Amino acid sequence: MPSKSEIDLLSLAELHWHKMGQASLSGSLLELFRKLDARFQDFAKKYKPEEYFFPPFISASQMAKLDYFKSFPHLLTIPVTLDEEKDNLLEFAGAPLREDGSLQLGKVQAVKEVLTPAACYHFYDELEGSKFTSCKFFTTRCVCYRREKQYLPLQRQWAFSMREFVCIGSLEEVQNYLAEFEAALAVYFKEMEFPVNFEFATDPFFNPSANPKYLLQKLEPVKKEMIYDGKLSIGSLNFHRNFFGETFSLSHNDTPAYSACVAFGLERWIYMILNERGLDSNKWRI
Amino acid sequence: MPSKSEIDLLSLAELHWHKMGQASLSGSLLELFRKLDARFQDFAKKYKPEEYFFPPFISASQMAKLDYFKSFPHLLTIPVTLDEEKDNLLEFAGAPLREDGSLQLGKVQAVKEVLTPAACYHFYDELEGSKFTSCKFFTTRCVCYRREKQYLPLQRQWAFSMREFVCIGSLEEVQNYLAEFEAALAVYFKEMEFPVNFEFATDPFFNPSANPKYLLQKLEPVKKEMIYDGKLSIGSLNFHRNFFGETFSLSHNDTPAYSACVAFGLERWIYMILNERGLDSNKWRI
Repeated sequence: MPSKSEIDLLSLAELHWHKMGQASLSGSLLELFRKLDARFQDFAKKYKPEEYFFPPFISASQMAKLDYFKSFPHLLTIPVTLDEEKDNLLEFAGAPLREDGSLQLGKVQAVKEVLTPAACYHFYDELEGSKFTSCKFFTTRCVCYRREKQYLPLQRQWAFSMREFVCIGSLEEVQNYLAEFEAALAVYFKEMEFPVNFEFATDPFFNPSANPKYLLQKLEPVKKEMIYDGKLSIGSLNFHRNFFGETFSLSHNDTPAYSACVAFGLERWIYMILNERGLDSNKWRI
Repeated sequence: MPSKSEIDLLSLAELHWHKMGQASLSGSLLELFRKLDARFQDFAKKYKPEEYFFPPFISASQMAKLDYFKSFPHLLTIPVTLDEEKDNLLEFAGAPLREDGSLQLGKVQAVKEVLTPAACYHFYDELEGSKFTSCKFFTTRCVCYRREKQYLPLQRQWAFSMREFVCIGSLEEVQNYLAEFEAALAVYFKEMEFPVNFEFATDPFFNPSANPKYLLQKLEPVKKEMIYDGKLSIGSLNFHRNFFGETFSLSHNDTPAYSACVAFGLERWIYMILNERGLDSNKWRI
């Protein structure tokens, strides 16, 4: 019997891998994707989170408030359009591609948006200025974009799907939320016999030693990852302190709100299920 | 009573309009989005279409085969990343934004992908080289990107959701499919009292008079739009002849396959429902 790590993902007819770091799913894999997403929502059902359907772009000036461009410029993907002056479009239309298949962009228009690198940023942007008087719970699933040096089917993609559950409230409420969620997940992983451990981690900062945010994460861990098989993060529990509350004037009983999110990477979960349960869809117990 | 066209969409708490031409949905509007998508799938259930979940990017060299860059360069959105050389990233990180909030991109990496402008292109790309011996039906919903000169909530967005149903088969099968679908939709629009007419249309070509594809569409109409209230296209029925079959070596019984697609714009349907039924979600009969 082959070891689990030798499973040939690309032999699956229902997984369509694109060299540009993204996957299409159909058939039983698409069904698994949906069942996993329903399972994640089941974990959070006691909080009755309000669901949002978000668009793909997020405002660059909002991301700048989070120091995102300083911390993660290497991960960024930006949606550009061509300068709409007719001669520029004619020039592009006449020779759109170089020999290697890359686009000859020419002049591009000023752009004020980025493709979102995480699902939960949308909430803080959208809810900016809100004054809450009770603990609030939200959820969304969206495609997130992170440029990497190399991609691997399901495990490391430029574009991937993330389901997030956000809690906004007092320090105590938010801490309880994370502790409860982690406890429920630990029970689940054990019951399913998935080899997943919780480990403190830091975000993949650019130029980390020069970034106070990185140093703070090292001193006071705020990110706990769900590490599958000792190597792949399939999700994370993130404590934001009152950073988003302060940055986006989100208050809870007149003080900057605390917040936290629990995030699940859909494609990575699919990878874990295939690796643990094999390629026969009848055995994909989750 | 205000005329239908005066409905104040932005008074809806569950519609979050972003200046960059995209909308977030929550609550009853998100429920309506899902019900509409289910309704569209109900229209097509007799074909038992195979569903795919596609990623956001599509290969530029595949789009070039369709002459897309010559025909629609003005609509295009391209996902760029920063050149990953450290000094370039440091420069960006130090001054990411201009005063007007636009990004100071600096050097960007070569890019071989675009953000898909329509849902169905993914199928022809994915199925390239397939040899079918019977008529095939597929469906997907995905976010599509088209740059416009200006945007209007739900009616005209940079990023919007499209559900498509594709048929690949013989000339006769594909023509029957389109005729059947149109007949079923006509019955539906009448039953629901939605003022929607089918009208022949041309795609919004760049520099149309110089483009043989535009001239061909004028001579032999292949695109029929569902026009709501005499002005807004909420969907279309498209006959591709054997163009995709020839371009992507898709055969049906050893000859280039014919294909057609029926497309529904989710946000525009929501606009129609709100405009026709009013803002009270209890009255959103679809």
